[in-house]
Amino acid sequence: MSATIIDGKLLAETIRQRVADEAKRLGITPGLTVVIVGEDPASQVYVRNKVKQTEAAGFHGSEHRLPESTSEANLLKLVQTLNNDPSVHGILVQLPLPDHIDPDLVIRTIDPAKDVDGFHPINAGKLAVGQDSLVPCTPQGCILLAKTVHPDLTGLNAVVLGRSNIVGKPVAQLLIQESATVTVAHSKTQDLSDVCARADLLVAAVGRAELVKRHWIKPGATVIDVGINRVADGLGKSRLVGDVAFNEAKEIAGAITPVPGGVGPMTIACLLANTLKAACWAEGKPAPTF
Amino acid sequence: MSATIIDGKLLAETIRQRVADEAKRLGITPGLTVVIVGEDPASQVYVRNKVKQTEAAGFHGSEHRLPESTSEANLLKLVQTLNNDPSVHGILVQLPLPDHIDPDLVIRTIDPAKDVDGFHPINAGKLAVGQDSLVPCTPQGCILLAKTVHPDLTGLNAVVLGRSNIVGKPVAQLLIQESATVTVAHSKTQDLSDVCARADLLVAAVGRAELVKRHWIKPGATVIDVGINRVADGLGKSRLVGDVAFNEAKEIAGAITPVPGGVGPMTIACLLANTLKAACWAEGKPAPTF
Repeated sequence: MSATIIDGKLLAETIRQRVADEAKRLGITPGLTVVIVGEDPASQVYVRNKVKQTEAAGFHGSEHRLPESTSEANLLKLVQTLNNDPSVHGILVQLPLPDHIDPDLVIRTIDPAKDVDGFHPINAGKLAVGQDSLVPCTPQGCILLAKTVHPDLTGLNAVVLGRSNIVGKPVAQLLIQESATVTVAHSKTQDLSDVCARADLLVAAVGRAELVKRHWIKPGATVIDVGINRVADGLGKSRLVGDVAFNEAKEIAGAITPVPGGVGPMTIACLLANTLKAACWAEGKPAPTF
Repeated sequence: MSATIIDGKLLAETIRQRVADEAKRLGITPGLTVVIVGEDPASQVYVRNKVKQTEAAGFHGSEHRLPESTSEANLLKLVQTLNNDPSVHGILVQLPLPDHIDPDLVIRTIDPAKDVDGFHPINAGKLAVGQDSLVPCTPQGCILLAKTVHPDLTGLNAVVLGRSNIVGKPVAQLLIQESATVTVAHSKTQDLSDVCARADLLVAAVGRAELVKRHWIKPGATVIDVGINRVADGLGKSRLVGDVAFNEAKEIAGAITPVPGGVGPMTIACLLANTLKAACWAEGKPAPTF
């Protein structure tokens, strides 16, 4: 039996379309500003995609490209200017930042109501206690992908592999809110493969290429692979693989996300959904859910 | 074999003594103000104990008793006055509040640096992302009790039974930080007793009298019982029991906290530790850890 391949590209497209339609219906033009400091090539690609898809959704997208040498004080000043600009509903400061800038301080300076990455401690806190907040995009995408297979996650045994602040922990919090039974496993977990093999829903977010093998997966389980790892293909080039050994995993899983084309595209779709939500709040309109 | 009984009363006393000694050593007098609205008899007892133990530790304790009819606006005004009072390092508004007052709004109004209950969303967020914060008292007490048995919690299979914002979720976050493998189980969990029976460390925080039976416990496991439930004793009186059926559990567990005398006394000890921490921050001194 071969697993259903969960098409993240298609779901992301559907959500981006619905976000665009809702914005039009509500008569608002959400504005998203992306700030990038320095020349990290991967970041450049991400930012370009974010701005492109923002504009494709009919939103107002803008970009601030600052040199690597930008001082922390100047970056904070820019963030404050954006906080005070009513045409900017969402502010995203692309990480990583150069070493001389404290990312936590920058994140804390963003107006929590414009923090579309959901990284501000007050948004992390609202998520932790189950209050309405701007939820980090990738974790949100994981839940939406899982729900294509299990519309109701209640009572599912979910295992989250990884405990990062940007993926593992928020995914776990969202799953608890959805009434799943949630285990957070990580590098210090004993019998890691056995713990994973108990999961009806396995979310792999450790950043280790193809760590999760066939025997780590319960037959019929749903597997959401957050990893994006670049590995040599042995022919002098490289390819992207997830945290799950996809080819063997798909023989045992019930459903699985591919890499690329699974979680990846969902991140920007959820970023647009967050920006719409922030814009609705700013305009005093009810925010749609996706 | 009978379990080691973990003496929460003794540990709490030790911590209160160490907190008092540290405050003296640092030459500061931490100030804790407790606000109570209305006449709830249980709350009256809690508040009396808090103030008494605050003063016993050499801290400055004060109390604001407001009538049930106090308006939300007036309560918020009092909180703001306390926020601005440099002699007040910790503010605790006793819950529950009367129905006409929004507890979330009151909690959000407390200066996060004086929020010794650790309930402000920004403190919940800092806890969620592992930043130094004021951590809710009861969860902190659970970890300290568990550490009397396991000084290092790394790799332990921990199950947290219950997912409340004030106990279950923060306990889970603290355990993740301590590198345990953490499962959050709750009323929607399937095969709840089997899930619990996998735990090396079981924290029961559901508020259901003696729910956890002998066969829910792995032989030799450590059991932390957060429940405080009043039940009829069949003789026209009542007695306090935990969420764990203590008499049968102690035959199989390796170590267990009693009710009363386990988690309960730890809460005020940790409240004093938080107040000392807040006072150290206010005075620009390094905060001791316990």
